[in-house]
Amino acid sequence: MSTDDLDGVHPAWLPPEAFRAIAARQVRVAGTGPLVETVRAEVTRAGATIAEDAELVLGFAGEVGSLGDEGFALSRRDGVTTVLADAPAGLLYGFFHVVRLGEAAFTGDRPVERHVPAMRRRMLDHWDHVDVHPVMGQVERGYSGGSIFWRAGAARDLARVRAYARLLAAVGINAISVNNVNVHATEAKLLTERLGDVAAIADVLRPYGIRVHLSVNFAAPVILGGLPTADPLDEGVRAWWAEATRRVYEAIPDFGGYVVKADSEGQPGPFGYGRSHGDGANALADALAPFGGVVHWRAFVYNHRQDWRDRSTDRARAAYDHFAPLDGQFRDNAILQVKYGPIDFQTREPISPVIAAMPATAVAVELQVTQEYTGQQRHACYLGPMWSAILGFPLTEAADVAGLAKEVVAVSNVGDDPFWTGHPLAQANLYAFGRLAWDPALDPVSILDEWIDVTLGTEVDREALHAILDDSWRTYESYTAPLGVGFMVRPGHHYGPDVDGYEYTPWGTYHFADRDGVGVDRTRATGTGFTGQYPEPWSDVYESLERCPDELLLFFHHVPYGHVLRNGSTVIQHIYDTHFAGAERTVEMRRLWERLAGQVDAGLDTRVRERLDEQVRSAAEWRDQVNTYFYRKSGVPDAKGRRIY
Amino acid sequence: MSTDDLDGVHPAWLPPEAFRAIAARQVRVAGTGPLVETVRAEVTRAGATIAEDAELVLGFAGEVGSLGDEGFALSRRDGVTTVLADAPAGLLYGFFHVVRLGEAAFTGDRPVERHVPAMRRRMLDHWDHVDVHPVMGQVERGYSGGSIFWRAGAARDLARVRAYARLLAAVGINAISVNNVNVHATEAKLLTERLGDVAAIADVLRPYGIRVHLSVNFAAPVILGGLPTADPLDEGVRAWWAEATRRVYEAIPDFGGYVVKADSEGQPGPFGYGRSHGDGANALADALAPFGGVVHWRAFVYNHRQDWRDRSTDRARAAYDHFAPLDGQFRDNAILQVKYGPIDFQTREPISPVIAAMPATAVAVELQVTQEYTGQQRHACYLGPMWSAILGFPLTEAADVAGLAKEVVAVSNVGDDPFWTGHPLAQANLYAFGRLAWDPALDPVSILDEWIDVTLGTEVDREALHAILDDSWRTYESYTAPLGVGFMVRPGHHYGPDVDGYEYTPWGTYHFADRDGVGVDRTRATGTGFTGQYPEPWSDVYESLERCPDELLLFFHHVPYGHVLRNGSTVIQHIYDTHFAGAERTVEMRRLWERLAGQVDAGLDTRVRERLDEQVRSAAEWRDQVNTYFYRKSGVPDAKGRRIY
Repeated sequence: MSTDDLDGVHPAWLPPEAFRAIAARQVRVAGTGPLVETVRAEVTRAGATIAEDAELVLGFAGEVGSLGDEGFALSRRDGVTTVLADAPAGLLYGFFHVVRLGEAAFTGDRPVERHVPAMRRRMLDHWDHVDVHPVMGQVERGYSGGSIFWRAGAARDLARVRAYARLLAAVGINAISVNNVNVHATEAKLLTERLGDVAAIADVLRPYGIRVHLSVNFAAPVILGGLPTADPLDEGVRAWWAEATRRVYEAIPDFGGYVVKADSEGQPGPFGYGRSHGDGANALADALAPFGGVVHWRAFVYNHRQDWRDRSTDRARAAYDHFAPLDGQFRDNAILQVKYGPIDFQTREPISPVIAAMPATAVAVELQVTQEYTGQQRHACYLGPMWSAILGFPLTEAADVAGLAKEVVAVSNVGDDPFWTGHPLAQANLYAFGRLAWDPALDPVSILDEWIDVTLGTEVDREALHAILDDSWRTYESYTAPLGVGFMVRPGHHYGPDVDGYEYTPWGTYHFADRDGVGVDRTRATGTGFTGQYPEPWSDVYESLERCPDELLLFFHHVPYGHVLRNGSTVIQHIYDTHFAGAERTVEMRRLWERLAGQVDAGLDTRVRERLDEQVRSAAEWRDQVNTYFYRKSGVPDAKGRRIY
Repeated sequence: MSTDDLDGVHPAWLPPEAFRAIAARQVRVAGTGPLVETVRAEVTRAGATIAEDAELVLGFAGEVGSLGDEGFALSRRDGVTTVLADAPAGLLYGFFHVVRLGEAAFTGDRPVERHVPAMRRRMLDHWDHVDVHPVMGQVERGYSGGSIFWRAGAARDLARVRAYARLLAAVGINAISVNNVNVHATEAKLLTERLGDVAAIADVLRPYGIRVHLSVNFAAPVILGGLPTADPLDEGVRAWWAEATRRVYEAIPDFGGYVVKADSEGQPGPFGYGRSHGDGANALADALAPFGGVVHWRAFVYNHRQDWRDRSTDRARAAYDHFAPLDGQFRDNAILQVKYGPIDFQTREPISPVIAAMPATAVAVELQVTQEYTGQQRHACYLGPMWSAILGFPLTEAADVAGLAKEVVAVSNVGDDPFWTGHPLAQANLYAFGRLAWDPALDPVSILDEWIDVTLGTEVDREALHAILDDSWRTYESYTAPLGVGFMVRPGHHYGPDVDGYEYTPWGTYHFADRDGVGVDRTRATGTGFTGQYPEPWSDVYESLERCPDELLLFFHHVPYGHVLRNGSTVIQHIYDTHFAGAERTVEMRRLWERLAGQVDAGLDTRVRERLDEQVRSAAEWRDQVNTYFYRKSGVPDAKGRRIY
């Protein structure tokens, strides 16, 4: 397990210091098999002694079943800390749990704690390309350098992937897909002639309990197989998928499955053959079923050639309209992958009603660790609180989102950047995603604390870090698109403000601001009726101008600038106030970081400072453009007389 | 003179039919030398007989000097048409004049007409790249396929360039630059190691009286020469330019000179060394002087990192502020190349005051044949009337623009497209540019008539073509940015509407629309003072809200939407009216074209129809976005109750 070629790469949350408590102990690891060997190797690598008479014992519980494939039980008694599991992966996760605890794992007695993941699959999607895409580059929406898998058309040396696998295992990730959901010509061939590249990645991930998934092109039978059709009900097509899938499992026996973006933003799909998305997903599911594989079928289907003049079409409705009627039609191993909100990873959106609408379908909630719309890893924006709010949202009277979904999937923010994530503090997002996918009930502030401990050490100014990050998502929200209205970013690259950037485009993302008011009327009474896709109470709450939460007001209602919010402010004054406050807050964040000087690695310090400078600049730009735009439209002066242009 | 490899390329204004009148005659060509041989070859190619006893005689006047290097005299008496010149180029231009006249050249008597070009240099700048630029492609702002000179890093076969040279000579162009003014790494080397490519082009252009110019990078002494500086006053730098230039003339004895974009949009320049643009231009002029070459020094210098919040900085002022104080400091062979308007080739701008401000400097007016801001060769937009208005504009009390300028230069619209110009009707722009550069007093409608005759033949529905094209520039203006305000295009590619696209950017191109009004206050009284850069009467005319021409109102003034124009309409109603009318007019243009069915080449017909469809679509989009934008801002309903969104 060489790390020679990782010189200059930041260890993230697995620096030698994180293993200090274990290094000082004797450790016993029971059992055999590849994952147990991984644990043993980790123990040795940590500097600990393998011994029979140990203070840390990792072994099997003997009661197969109660902890499942991945769970573990942790306890400490009589000076011995014990991790028990029913299966090898549980030992691995238990080991890394001890790493996280540090000395606390070896202090006092500890009653038996059961740790079983809430989600059977905790997955990262990489939007990486094999070839450099002329517009999107090596990684679509990647803000952390190149891909760790591919460079300019070729597979890379896998040392970096090996290190990545360790990091992921340490936070409980057990599946990744290795190529973008927009599957271009070269990437399509990963399924066939370039399968060896995928198998090599799988070999590196396997010792860490991570399965490889592959994004495939729905038209692969045509593109790769030379068939005249990709009709999912065509027998030849089904045979092609069956055979292609058989070959995949020949090369990768624990292959996870396929990820498909179909009939979406120009990608081919079943609509092209007059078939439903149920037909489409099931064709691939059937090919995978004999081998235990799954297909992740994205629900991101909408008309991206909408006419902006047409106010009756509502992109927010699209996923529900397309998929809710299909509930019950999907195979058990077809997982419908639904973005958390009805639009597209905005800083603030309501929860997608699709998640509650398909009780007979396995649903995965899709999040975005890569900060496409939340500062692109140039802004410090800790997303733990957002994801915690999403997963804990009581979407039905019976269950929250984490209870309704079977899985959590997220778009990775990792690249070949020395800090992995561009902004060093964005590591905390990757970390938090893994931890919340394992246990959505965890407190995101405590998760951040964990990350600080293992990554930056226990001696740093933790108060300053919390002050920078705890509220940084809400800070980002405060200086960008107001009150849930969304999409005020520059078209194309999506960085920085452009209030009207998408207003007259075919993308279905409008705010309808005029001289009198702003917002999208999605009510049943007078608007697009999107509120009707929600179960009670949300269907009525969102419909009601009085009960709708402020932060989603403009997502659901078009209101005059003088409308008084639940917080007592008018819409226009709220816009001014939040934008002035948000931009000012970034200055404060930069000042707070100065307290870390000398406490963190100099390279990391420099990188963070550079990013905070950009965040301060960019937040001021957001403030001024948004305020100016609404001042020019509304003509309402700021009650506090601050500078608007 | 092979044309074998031009199968499938449209002959533009030199089809065999254009030579019909000559083909039927016996022709005598006097004299010797390469250009005379070209004329003789053209005569033969036309199908005419070379004979002593001729009805068309081309010869030398014997009174050297009165017609200059390029002029000719045409007359007809006793059944003989005579073209006389003092120099071979005059014969060539006289020959093509006879081609244009067709049978009319051989009808009745014709008193002696002198034709001497108004401009000593009539030049096209190609913004072509050798390498494909990752953003701009093979040709920056090219809408006609690839480059005729280069493809993917290599020089192309020159058959196409040979045909291009003929076309240009036929309209009097005598100079072209062969690479983009943004000179990237590979293109920089055209001056040195790739000079052979340029020499090969020069060899092909020479028989048609066209000289080659080269865009060079101001930092070439550093980039190519490895010197530590490109300071124009440094002796080593001057020596480097002298030697590089000597080598150029060794390879291309009639080389025209250099074109330089310095200190502009990121290109290096003298400012980087604390020197003036006079110093910069003169360094290159001095290197060229011993060989009779010239440097075209672009005046397009402005701050492209402006703060949109800062209303005191005015990009329109920049060229004058930078260059007017330098009048008298430029060498005789340094030509200041000034865009016709103070901003950037907008559909409507006032004339650049720089053209009147530098009487002791050789000024070239720069136009744009490539339709970057006038429909990108997808919209039919005949620019002859615009250029005619520009060149004939009485900028000072003593002289019009054509009188003040020594040269006209334009950015070419030609590529390797089968019709040369993408839109077949855009050929008329290239044609008209050449003709107006030769004689700015020509009527643009008559020029169009000429183009129709030679290109489409004398039998086509000329009335329909005039109805489509004569007013097409004003039609384009009517459905795009109103009243001279400029820049409402999509950032980057500049096609289609985006009213706020540049409003909050660093590019200095703003309209300042708010709920009350729109426009840029450039008055001395309350604005940026740009009006003060004009001589009388314009200085006062533009300053005055009452006297300022409607079509430039928003360029010079910020006015309320209810402001009444000289034409009696309010600003807002004018916006609505012109946009509805303009879009409707494109539908009429499409209907008019149908009258040409069967009268023109089928491939050309298809191409034009396809473009007219797009023009109709795009004009409706412009109409709706602009009207909606201003309706949402102003709240003023259309007096005629038409649909606004």
